[in-house]
Amino acid sequence: MADLQVDVDALAAAVVANSLTIRALVLLAGAVLTFFMQTGYAMVHVGCVQLKNTKNTLITNVFDSALASMVWWLIGFGFAFGDSDSSSNPFIGSDGFALSGSEFRGDDPSSLLAIRWAWWLLQWAFAGTTVTITSGAVAERITWPAYAMYSAVFLGFIYPVVVYWAWSMDGWASPYLSASDDLLSNCGVIDHAGSGVVHVSAGMAALVGAAMLGSRHGRFIEGIAREMPKASWVYQTLGTLILWFGWFGMVGSIGFGYTSGGDSLVAARAMVNAAIAAGTSCLTCVILSQLLDTVLSMEAANNGILSGLVAIAAGAAVVEPEGAFVIGFIAALCYFFGARLLVKIQVDDVVNASPVHLCAGAWGLIAPGLFATGELYQGAYGVIGGREQTCCGAFYGCSGDQLGAQLAFLVVIVCWVGTLVAATFFVAKVTVGLRLTTDIEDVGMDLSKHGGLTLAAVTGVPPVLQHLA
Amino acid sequence: MADLQVDVDALAAAVVANSLTIRALVLLAGAVLTFFMQTGYAMVHVGCVQLKNTKNTLITNVFDSALASMVWWLIGFGFAFGDSDSSSNPFIGSDGFALSGSEFRGDDPSSLLAIRWAWWLLQWAFAGTTVTITSGAVAERITWPAYAMYSAVFLGFIYPVVVYWAWSMDGWASPYLSASDDLLSNCGVIDHAGSGVVHVSAGMAALVGAAMLGSRHGRFIEGIAREMPKASWVYQTLGTLILWFGWFGMVGSIGFGYTSGGDSLVAARAMVNAAIAAGTSCLTCVILSQLLDTVLSMEAANNGILSGLVAIAAGAAVVEPEGAFVIGFIAALCYFFGARLLVKIQVDDVVNASPVHLCAGAWGLIAPGLFATGELYQGAYGVIGGREQTCCGAFYGCSGDQLGAQLAFLVVIVCWVGTLVAATFFVAKVTVGLRLTTDIEDVGMDLSKHGGLTLAAVTGVPPVLQHLA
Amino acid sequence: MADLQVDVDALAAAVVANSLTIRALVLLAGAVLTFFMQTGYAMVHVGCVQLKNTKNTLITNVFDSALASMVWWLIGFGFAFGDSDSSSNPFIGSDGFALSGSEFRGDDPSSLLAIRWAWWLLQWAFAGTTVTITSGAVAERITWPAYAMYSAVFLGFIYPVVVYWAWSMDGWASPYLSASDDLLSNCGVIDHAGSGVVHVSAGMAALVGAAMLGSRHGRFIEGIAREMPKASWVYQTLGTLILWFGWFGMVGSIGFGYTSGGDSLVAARAMVNAAIAAGTSCLTCVILSQLLDTVLSMEAANNGILSGLVAIAAGAAVVEPEGAFVIGFIAALCYFFGARLLVKIQVDDVVNASPVHLCAGAWGLIAPGLFATGELYQGAYGVIGGREQTCCGAFYGCSGDQLGAQLAFLVVIVCWVGTLVAATFFVAKVTVGLRLTTDIEDVGMDLSKHGGLTLAAVTGVPPVLQHLA
Repeated sequence: MADLQVDVDALAAAVVANSLTIRALVLLAGAVLTFFMQTGYAMVHVGCVQLKNTKNTLITNVFDSALASMVWWLIGFGFAFGDSDSSSNPFIGSDGFALSGSEFRGDDPSSLLAIRWAWWLLQWAFAGTTVTITSGAVAERITWPAYAMYSAVFLGFIYPVVVYWAWSMDGWASPYLSASDDLLSNCGVIDHAGSGVVHVSAGMAALVGAAMLGSRHGRFIEGIAREMPKASWVYQTLGTLILWFGWFGMVGSIGFGYTSGGDSLVAARAMVNAAIAAGTSCLTCVILSQLLDTVLSMEAANNGILSGLVAIAAGAAVVEPEGAFVIGFIAALCYFFGARLLVKIQVDDVVNASPVHLCAGAWGLIAPGLFATGELYQGAYGVIGGREQTCCGAFYGCSGDQLGAQLAFLVVIVCWVGTLVAATFFVAKVTVGLRLTTDIEDVGMDLSKHGGLTLAAVTGVPPVLQHLA
Repeated sequence: MADLQVDVDALAAAVVANSLTIRALVLLAGAVLTFFMQTGYAMVHVGCVQLKNTKNTLITNVFDSALASMVWWLIGFGFAFGDSDSSSNPFIGSDGFALSGSEFRGDDPSSLLAIRWAWWLLQWAFAGTTVTITSGAVAERITWPAYAMYSAVFLGFIYPVVVYWAWSMDGWASPYLSASDDLLSNCGVIDHAGSGVVHVSAGMAALVGAAMLGSRHGRFIEGIAREMPKASWVYQTLGTLILWFGWFGMVGSIGFGYTSGGDSLVAARAMVNAAIAAGTSCLTCVILSQLLDTVLSMEAANNGILSGLVAIAAGAAVVEPEGAFVIGFIAALCYFFGARLLVKIQVDDVVNASPVHLCAGAWGLIAPGLFATGELYQGAYGVIGGREQTCCGAFYGCSGDQLGAQLAFLVVIVCWVGTLVAATFFVAKVTVGLRLTTDIEDVGMDLSKHGGLTLAAVTGVPPVLQHLA
Repeated sequence: MADLQVDVDALAAAVVANSLTIRALVLLAGAVLTFFMQTGYAMVHVGCVQLKNTKNTLITNVFDSALASMVWWLIGFGFAFGDSDSSSNPFIGSDGFALSGSEFRGDDPSSLLAIRWAWWLLQWAFAGTTVTITSGAVAERITWPAYAMYSAVFLGFIYPVVVYWAWSMDGWASPYLSASDDLLSNCGVIDHAGSGVVHVSAGMAALVGAAMLGSRHGRFIEGIAREMPKASWVYQTLGTLILWFGWFGMVGSIGFGYTSGGDSLVAARAMVNAAIAAGTSCLTCVILSQLLDTVLSMEAANNGILSGLVAIAAGAAVVEPEGAFVIGFIAALCYFFGARLLVKIQVDDVVNASPVHLCAGAWGLIAPGLFATGELYQGAYGVIGGREQTCCGAFYGCSGDQLGAQLAFLVVIVCWVGTLVAATFFVAKVTVGLRLTTDIEDVGMDLSKHGGLTLAAVTGVPPVLQHLA
C-alpha cells in the first residue's frame, strides 16, 4: 500500500513534467516561427524599396535581429518581465537581466526552468520583429546611426516597458494582477498576441519616424503623390506569406507562457481566428481596390492579409469565428482608408507600416472590448470569481469595463511610444543627423555605405529597369 | 484506499489529456506547415509565368488562401466532414458549417474540442493548397472572374465532397466505416495524405481547365511547341523546396486526426517514405532528362521532387521504404512521359500541373493497392478483425480487394472532378467570359488589371530581359 | 488492491509512452527544420554565383537532397549509427542499412521504434545539408560528374564515419561510451549539433575542393583579387535567415535522440545560446567591416550570423549565455580574418564556405573545452560518477581533459576529411575530369548543360545587368 502510494506520487510528478515539457516545446516552436517573421519583414521591405537601397534595407532587417539578441539579453527582457520578489512595481521590471537570477539559473525542476528559457526566446523573437516593422516606414532616407540609435532605444526601453504593462504579472494594465482591485477598469487589458503591445507600438513609431523624416525626394511633387518604383512584387508577396505562416506560431504559442492559457483549445481557436480574419481582410481589400480604384491591387491584397492578422492578434483567443470575421472586415477598412489618409497628409511611409500596424492594430486592440465572449475569456485567462461575466465584450452582454481597459491602454501606448520615439529621433537629429544628404539619397545607400558592386550605382541601368527584380 | 483510487483516476484523466493535447498540437503544427505550401505554389507559379503576369499570378495564389478562409469556413468543411448524428449519408456532409454545432462549441473536454478545431485548420490548409494547384495550369490567359468562379465552386463543393468520400467516417469510399459490409471493395480506399483526394482532383481540374482554355499565344506554332519564357528558376526552385518542407508536415500530421493513426511511428515512417520517394523521383527525372534530352533539366529535377511527393501521399503510412522507392521511381516516369504527352496533344499547362498532380497522383493512388503491408495497414488504420490480411497490397500477399478499391475511387474522382470542373468553366464561358482578349493576353495582365507600375508594361524592356528575375 | 496495481502499471506505461512520443515528435520537427536549411543553402549559393550559373547552382543543391535520400538510406546511416550487437567497433557502423534490421522493424513498442525512424530522418537532413555546404565553394567551375562523385563519396562514407566517431554509442570519440576507460581524453568529445562533425567536415571539404580546382577566371588577375559579380543580395539574405530559422530546429532537437539529452531545458538553453551567438557574431562582423573597410558590409553581416551559428553548434547545450557571447565574438574574428587569409593565399571559395564553416567551426569545436560548465554538461549528457567535475571547460574549473578531447577530434577530422576529399577529387580529375573547359566556364553552365532558355546565354545582356536579380 505504501509502495503503491509512492508509485502514484512518482507518476503524478511524471505527468506534470510531461505537461510542462509540452508547454515549453510549444513556446520554443512558437519562438522559431515568430523569429521567421524577421525573414518576412525583410522580404516585404526589400520588395517595397527602390533597387538602389536593396542592401541597405536587407542589412537593416538583419541588424535588428542581431541587435535584439544583445539588447534583449542584457536589458530588454529584464525591463519587460523581470519579476522582483520584493516589490510589485506596476511600471517596469527589474530582474532577469542577462538571463541571470534564480528565475533562470535556480534550483527549480528543469521542466519549469525550461518554460522560462523558452519564454525568453519567444519574447526575443517578438522584440526583434517589432522593432523591424518601423524600419520599413523610414527606409531610403534615414541615416544609419540614427536608425541604430532608434533601434537600440526601442528594443531596450520603449518596447519592453509596454510589454511589462500588459503581459507581466505586475503591470498596471495586466489582466494577471493578483489583487483584483488594482485591475485597470476592473479587467486589465486583453492583448493576447500584441495588436497593442506589438503593432500599435511599432506602427506609432513608424508614423512618427516617417513624419519627422519627411518624404523621399520625388514622392510628393507639388502636393501630388507619385508612385515610387518598388523593387519586386515577388519579394513583397513572399514576405507577406511568410508573415502569415509565422503569425500562426505567434498567436498559437504565446498562451502557453501562462498557466491559464496553456491549452491546446485556446491555441487552436486563436489560429483558426487568424485564418478567418486574414482571409476576410484580404478579400475586403481586394474588393475595395476593384470598386474604388478599378484594379485588383496586389498591395491591397498583401496588406489586407497583414491588417487582418494585426487586428486579430489581441482578441484571437477570446472571440468566436464570427467575431474574427467582423474584426478582419473592419481591419481592411482601417488599412485601406488609413493608407489614403496618409497620402493626403503627405506622410511617406514606404511600406505602409502605419496603416497596417497602427490603424488596424488600434482597431484590433479595441475589438476584444466588443467581441470577447465570457466563456472564451475564462478559458484563455483562467479567471475566477465572476470576472468572465463583467470583462467580456460589450456586444456579448458585458458592461463597458473591458472596452474601457482597451481604450485606456491604447491611449497610453500611443502617447508613450509617440513621445519617446519623437524624442529619440530628435536626439538623433541634433547629434548624429537624421536624414541623408540629397546626394546620397538620390544615388542610393548601397553605393555609398555598403561597398561592393551594386546595380544602380554602376550606372547604365535605365530607370525602367528599377522595377525588375 | 479510496483516496488512492481517486488519485489514480485523476491521473488517468491527466494522462489522456496529455495524449489528446499532443494530438491537437501535431495537427496545428501540420496545419501551419501545410499552409506554408501556399507560399511554395506561389513561388513555383510566379517563376513559371512570363514577367508580364507576375502580379496576376501572385494575387491569384494569395486570393485562393483568402477565399479558402471564407468558403471553407462557411460551407466547405461542413460538406467535407459534417457528421450529422441522425443519418449516415455516404455522399456529403451536412453539419459544422461556419464552425458551428456541438462538435465545435459543445461541452466536451477542451482537449477533445481542440482536436476538432485543429483538424479544421489542417483541412483548411489542405483545401487552400489544393485549389491553388490548378491556378498554375490556367495562368496567363484566364479571366479573373472565371478563375474566381472556379475557385469558389471547387473550394465550396467539388473538393469537399471528394474529401467526404475518403476521409470522413461515413463516405462511401472511407476505410473508417463502422459497418464493414459497406466498405468499398471490402476495404475502403487508402489515401493517407491525398494522392487522390488532393492531387488527382487538382490535377484533373488543371487538365480540364488548360484544355478548355486553349494554349497561350505562341506556345504552339503550326503544331510545334515553343518554349515560353519563364520568369525565374530561382523562384521555381525556392517554391519546390518550400513544398517539400511543407509536405513533411502534411504526411506527418494528418494521421493524428484519427484515433487510430495518431501514432508517432506512423508519422515518422510516412515522413521517411516521403524523403525516399521524393529523392528517387528527382534522381530518376534528372537521369531521364540527361539520357533523352542530353541536358540536366532544372524543371525535371524540381518536378521530379513534386511527383515523388504526390505519389507517396496516399501510401506514405502503409508502405515500406522499398515500396516508397519503387513508387518514387514510377512517379518519375508518370511525370516525365506525361509531360511529353501533354505537349503532343498540345495542351498548354503552364506549370505542368497535370503531369505532376494527375499522372503521378493517379499512380500514387493505385500504389497502396500493390505495396501496402498488412502490418503497417493495421498500425495506421487500427483495423481489427483480420482486415489487415485482406486489404494489404497485391505484392504483399493480399487479394486484389484493396487494389480494386483504389482503382474504383480513382475512376470516380476523375469523372466527378472532370465533369463538374468542365461544367463550371462552361458556365463561366457563357456568363463572365473564360479567356482574355488577345490584346490583354499579349500585353499581360499586370498592366491592364492590377494597377501600379509594371515592368513589361512600361515598354523599353527588350524581350530577352523577360527571363530576368 | 490488485486491480489498482494493474491500473497504476498501465498508467505508468502510458506516461512513458507519452514521453517517448514527445521525443519522437521533437526529432521529426527538428528534421523538418533542418531539412529546410537545404533551401537556405540553395538561396545563399544562387545569390553568390554569377547569373550564368543560376540553374547549375540550384540543381546542385536540389540534387544533393535527392542523392542524400538514396545514399543515406542505402549505406550512410548504417555506417553512421549501425549498432551491431556483436561487436563494439570504434570506427564505423555496420547495421541498419536500407532501414533494415530489428532496430527499425523489430517488435519493440511503437513509441521506441518511432524515435529511431525520426532519428533517421533528422540525420538524413543533417547529411543533406552538410554535403551541400561544399557545393558553394566549388561552384562555377567544377564538372557535374566530378561533383556527383564527390557528393556520393562524402554522403556514403567520409561523413558517416565522422558521425559514428562522435555521435554513436561506440565511436572512439563518443562521450556515450559505456566503458569510461575508453573515453577519449577521459571525456569524449562534446559536439552537440556538429561544429566539428558537420561544419569542420564540410568546411575542410570546401577548402580542399576550392584549392584543387583553382580560382575562377578573372577572380585573381596578376595576384590582385577582383570582386566577381554576385547574382543577388536578396537571395543571399533570404538564405541566411532561412538557415538561422532552421538552425534553431537543429540545435533544439538533436538532444532528444539520446535518453540523457531529451530534455526541454537542454533544448531551450541551446536555442537561446544560438540566438545570442549569432547576434554577437553578426554585430561584430558589421563593426569590423565598418572599422576596417569603412562600409557596412552585407556579406559580413550575413556570414557573421552563420559563423556564430556554426561556432555555437558544438557547445550550445553546455555553455552559459555569457559563454555563447564570447563564442560568437571570436567566431566573427575567425570568419573575418579567415576570409582575408583566403584572399591572400588566392583560394577562390565562391561563398566563403571555408571561413564560415572551417574557421568558425574549428573554434566552435574547441570552445566547449573552455566554456562548458559542469552542471550543464551533466544535464545534457546525463553523466554519472563525477565526470561533470573533470570534463567541463578549462575556464570553469576543470582540468584540460575536455579541451584535449576537443583538440584531438579536431585534428583527426581535419586530416580524415582533407585526405579523403583530396583523394576523391584526384580520382575525379583523372577519370571524369575535374574542371570545366575555359569556354564553358566563360559562357556559364546554364547554357551548355541545363537546356532551355537562359538569360546570359541568349546574349544581349550588358554585363552590368548581371547583378540584377
